[in-house]
Amino acid sequence: MRGHVGHFITEKGDIQANCDVIAGKLSFTFTFFAQVYLTLLSHNSFSVRSHTCGELRSTHVGEVVTLCGWIQYQRHGMFIILRDFSGLIQVLIPEDESRAKLKEFCDVPVESVVKVMGKVRRRPAGQENMNMPTGEIEVCAETVEVLNVCQKLPFEIKDFVKKTESLRMQYRYLDLRSSQMQYNLRLRSRLVMKMRDYLCNKHGFVDVETPTLFKRTPGGAKEFLVPSRDPGRFYSLPQSPQQFKQLLMVAGIDRYFQIARCYRDESSKPDRQPEFTQVDIEMSFVDQAGIQALIEGLVQHMWPDEKGSVSTPFPSMTYEEAMRDFGVDKPDTRFGMKVNVPFLRDTFRQPGGCVQAICVVNGAVILLLEDGLFDCILSCSVDFQQEVSVVVVKTDGTWKSPLGKMLPESVKQSVHQMTMAQPGDLLILAAGQQDRPLLGKLRLYCAELLEEKGVALRDPTAFHFLWVVDFPLFLPKKEEPGELESAHHPFTAPHPEDADRLFSEPHKVRSQHFDLVLNGCEIGGGSVRIHNASVQKFVLEKVLKEDSSLLSHLLEALASGAPPHGGIALGLDRLLSIIVGASSIRDVIAFPKSFRGHDLMSGAPSFVSKEELRPYHIDVKTLGFSKFQPLLCIPVLSIKAAAAFQMK
Amino acid sequence: MRGHVGHFITEKGDIQANCDVIAGKLSFTFTFFAQVYLTLLSHNSFSVRSHTCGELRSTHVGEVVTLCGWIQYQRHGMFIILRDFSGLIQVLIPEDESRAKLKEFCDVPVESVVKVMGKVRRRPAGQENMNMPTGEIEVCAETVEVLNVCQKLPFEIKDFVKKTESLRMQYRYLDLRSSQMQYNLRLRSRLVMKMRDYLCNKHGFVDVETPTLFKRTPGGAKEFLVPSRDPGRFYSLPQSPQQFKQLLMVAGIDRYFQIARCYRDESSKPDRQPEFTQVDIEMSFVDQAGIQALIEGLVQHMWPDEKGSVSTPFPSMTYEEAMRDFGVDKPDTRFGMKVNVPFLRDTFRQPGGCVQAICVVNGAVILLLEDGLFDCILSCSVDFQQEVSVVVVKTDGTWKSPLGKMLPESVKQSVHQMTMAQPGDLLILAAGQQDRPLLGKLRLYCAELLEEKGVALRDPTAFHFLWVVDFPLFLPKKEEPGELESAHHPFTAPHPEDADRLFSEPHKVRSQHFDLVLNGCEIGGGSVRIHNASVQKFVLEKVLKEDSSLLSHLLEALASGAPPHGGIALGLDRLLSIIVGASSIRDVIAFPKSFRGHDLMSGAPSFVSKEELRPYHIDVKTLGFSKFQPLLCIPVLSIKAAAAFQMK
Repeated sequence: MRGHVGHFITEKGDIQANCDVIAGKLSFTFTFFAQVYLTLLSHNSFSVRSHTCGELRSTHVGEVVTLCGWIQYQRHGMFIILRDFSGLIQVLIPEDESRAKLKEFCDVPVESVVKVMGKVRRRPAGQENMNMPTGEIEVCAETVEVLNVCQKLPFEIKDFVKKTESLRMQYRYLDLRSSQMQYNLRLRSRLVMKMRDYLCNKHGFVDVETPTLFKRTPGGAKEFLVPSRDPGRFYSLPQSPQQFKQLLMVAGIDRYFQIARCYRDESSKPDRQPEFTQVDIEMSFVDQAGIQALIEGLVQHMWPDEKGSVSTPFPSMTYEEAMRDFGVDKPDTRFGMKVNVPFLRDTFRQPGGCVQAICVVNGAVILLLEDGLFDCILSCSVDFQQEVSVVVVKTDGTWKSPLGKMLPESVKQSVHQMTMAQPGDLLILAAGQQDRPLLGKLRLYCAELLEEKGVALRDPTAFHFLWVVDFPLFLPKKEEPGELESAHHPFTAPHPEDADRLFSEPHKVRSQHFDLVLNGCEIGGGSVRIHNASVQKFVLEKVLKEDSSLLSHLLEALASGAPPHGGIALGLDRLLSIIVGASSIRDVIAFPKSFRGHDLMSGAPSFVSKEELRPYHIDVKTLGFSKFQPLLCIPVLSIKAAAAFQMK
Repeated sequence: MRGHVGHFITEKGDIQANCDVIAGKLSFTFTFFAQVYLTLLSHNSFSVRSHTCGELRSTHVGEVVTLCGWIQYQRHGMFIILRDFSGLIQVLIPEDESRAKLKEFCDVPVESVVKVMGKVRRRPAGQENMNMPTGEIEVCAETVEVLNVCQKLPFEIKDFVKKTESLRMQYRYLDLRSSQMQYNLRLRSRLVMKMRDYLCNKHGFVDVETPTLFKRTPGGAKEFLVPSRDPGRFYSLPQSPQQFKQLLMVAGIDRYFQIARCYRDESSKPDRQPEFTQVDIEMSFVDQAGIQALIEGLVQHMWPDEKGSVSTPFPSMTYEEAMRDFGVDKPDTRFGMKVNVPFLRDTFRQPGGCVQAICVVNGAVILLLEDGLFDCILSCSVDFQQEVSVVVVKTDGTWKSPLGKMLPESVKQSVHQMTMAQPGDLLILAAGQQDRPLLGKLRLYCAELLEEKGVALRDPTAFHFLWVVDFPLFLPKKEEPGELESAHHPFTAPHPEDADRLFSEPHKVRSQHFDLVLNGCEIGGGSVRIHNASVQKFVLEKVLKEDSSLLSHLLEALASGAPPHGGIALGLDRLLSIIVGASSIRDVIAFPKSFRGHDLMSGAPSFVSKEELRPYHIDVKTLGFSKFQPLLCIPVLSIKAAAAFQMK
């Protein structure tokens, strides 16, 4: 039974606290900052404890300390292992204590909260535990006070005890006691503080809080509604402070940021968080390159030391390149397996289009017998309505595939050349439209499969940042491909090189939108905005065919001396989850909602009485049973009963 | 036409930027901090401008600069006064420019946005403007580019132009261009940053974001509801993160803070903000004195230099003393005029109770003829159901009042002694119950009246912090005085000296709740919380008669090893408004709601189609017209029509 929680907090402050800083002659201004930042960070100020459990070392030997914490476990009926957020310490109930008292503490359940006063002493020779940062010493208790008895627990508070996700959520206050969740939440706080420091103290950004009770935006189907006491009127919880940040630029705030709570009602997505946090930034008198440089500096400044270093500038790729080489607009560049166009489809005497291929190195050796791979290929093939062929490159370099006979040797040669295929590799070929999401998806799936088989494809400690730029400004609507919708949002400015085309060929216009991608996840999206009222009006009315009167306040603002401006929003939850290597953003949120958007701890959302709804002038509709529906429901309930009904 | 916007930004960073810091020999750790905090704060990084308008001085003479800003006004057809957030600068369109170009810029409307490139030069002798921080120099334009033309404005952007509140709200993005609003928002950002620095960097607090979509709390009549896609189920927007902060203590976070958005649906109050911000703090292993000391340090650390200094510890007063001496639980201690008990009511041969008095110095001279005073006295007298008498102390020391004849000379003598009344003063006497809110209210009203008349009663630059402690734990319910309700919230711990009484005489128990009062406004409330599950259950079930199952998750958490803990919440909006001397919290909020909770800029809350309500399974009730109501409505619509109806 060794200390398995360990020393999980190593903040800058701790290092600093142990450094003797001799600052020398300092100017007044410097003294101000020195005072603020160089005094010791204290976790014990204003507290009834004198030290945290985890901070004690052999340098404290002889000191009388007061500790508060949770009983992690007991040893030999004479040691209590005490835990707080900073780590573990061994407390000895000495032999010379009255046996009654000792007995009492042995009966206190684990996870009870106690206060211990005692002297730090070196552990007897041979009893040190070098796996425990406090393992050279122990505290010899003089008084122990039980502050709260732990009555019962649904699971043990030990890192190695695996809990189901729903149990973790239901007892989140216990789940958060784990060293991983403590690390995640504390890292989050630390990184956010560093971002604020960079934006506020280094670059003059102003932290402005914007409202979350706002007006419904046109087409805001994902916005939660909040009924007001004015009959029939609703507030809306916005998906982002987009309008407000632009209005703040019109207001001359010049540089705005906010760690902003955002809301999105996405019932269709399984892993949804109805509320999430974004680092929201907007600047005046800036171009795209300026915003990108700002963010590169921000990431570098906030990056935790323990995760290596980040080099800037980040590589950049156009949307077109990303789609061409990776089949996706957020490429995971930690590995190759690029999509290639080894030959035109004309080869098959079908004019137009082309054939694309990815080469899975050693895929034939490792993946060929994986059912998962073929299931995935099949379902992708159906989803994307494209033909997919799998080719095994045999040891002699020939193809094992029906395609092998259909293609001339010269074409096969060129495929090998382009994909650098070697014996043992697997070639996946697809024929269809130009955009290659199918191969993009298979590429990622193969990577996962290879890793499951133990192939070290992606370095788990690597962080590959990437800008994807030059997105299209508009895309054809899915339901009505003849009409256009904004690829991102209607406030995005057209690419300067395509500005004139906006009025003639809007579908060909590139935008000044850009995404920040980390390890294949989109963690931010930014753009230069339209600052000209008439351009904005044109986009809303003529291109998007929307009712611009719903945004009249924004159009008026643009006409009142709006500066050129642009900005970005980073998804804080996603960014944090990648940094700590969590599989879900739920692991970097203190109290997340479940898959279905429920709070499993409190039971939210919950039923509300008719009485409580009255001030809001709303009624809950009875489950789909309007007055015309009961008859239609009968056959569903019972076909026999319906038949009986008709026979009457 | 002088520069009236002036130099309204003097942040620490600016001072620092002008200091040459020679840091000497620094350790590695120190270098880290030096790197972070001692590099220049730049407002121009990543921007197309080289300088802000307000930062230029004679030291810049000869430099070629690029400025961006708004045209504040023009002079003599050859000068443009350019404005950005940092101040004003004069731009000269030189004589040797082509006249056409000059003409063009003279036609550009004020508040248009321009970019100017040119050389800084000293103004010709005699043309300096020493009222303008940039008044020694001007920029001789080489190129001027119009970035956006201001088309029309509802009001001029000049500080001296008075706007109605509703116009300011409707065009908030223009209102925020004023120097006062720029100062308020920038100060807010700066102070919040300092608070974070104190809590995070100095005292080890962890910034944790808690959900705002939560479960309705018992009796949460002021909570906004958010319909979910689960039929009949609603989220609730919490009034504070109270439950979450306590759960975080159970989770071992140890020290939590959050600048938290909170929601309160108070239709009854006229000056309401449905969303507001509180500085939310919670600590484990702390007592009341510890929390108070933490907050005193916080206020001192964040306090802006330009508002003087704050000395600690803050004075403290019990709830009983506050009610006794000031007739209110949040006394404005910037002036005296205390409530006195000069004689018992028995004097009037009515047993029990007493007579209280305040003495308005020079009140007889200054206020006697004020209708407002007597209206207020009358309405208070009715509201509080108490008798009020007004006594004028005449020049000879005798009383002008009906009471004069009723009271023996000895009693009058004691009144004078106690209240220190002098000729010319006004005595206000009230007889009624022990709690003296009536005189407390009149005291404040008289102070306002005196100040309106030019009496310097309260120093407008003074900031009087005060702790009010030892509040009662429970109060009789207003509707049912035989039952008790929490004076603050049901999680407040009883005062240690009264702990045993909780089970026998709960109405006599004092709490460990304490308020922070600044200049007569409650700006914060804190308490030590109940950490024992059975005590919490007793309070909920036996004292408050509430259904404790609605809080079962909290009770379970307290039973799972909850540490002793306590915390506080400061009202950030109110605190800021007092610091900047604003009459309303709307002046420290970027986009506030109106009196009635509306956003006058966008029109929120707004009507929503039946279609949009469908996913949430709710219907808007037709304005009180249920199927039985139309007949009842007829008389309201037209009595004549109703009469005609009945005559048929």
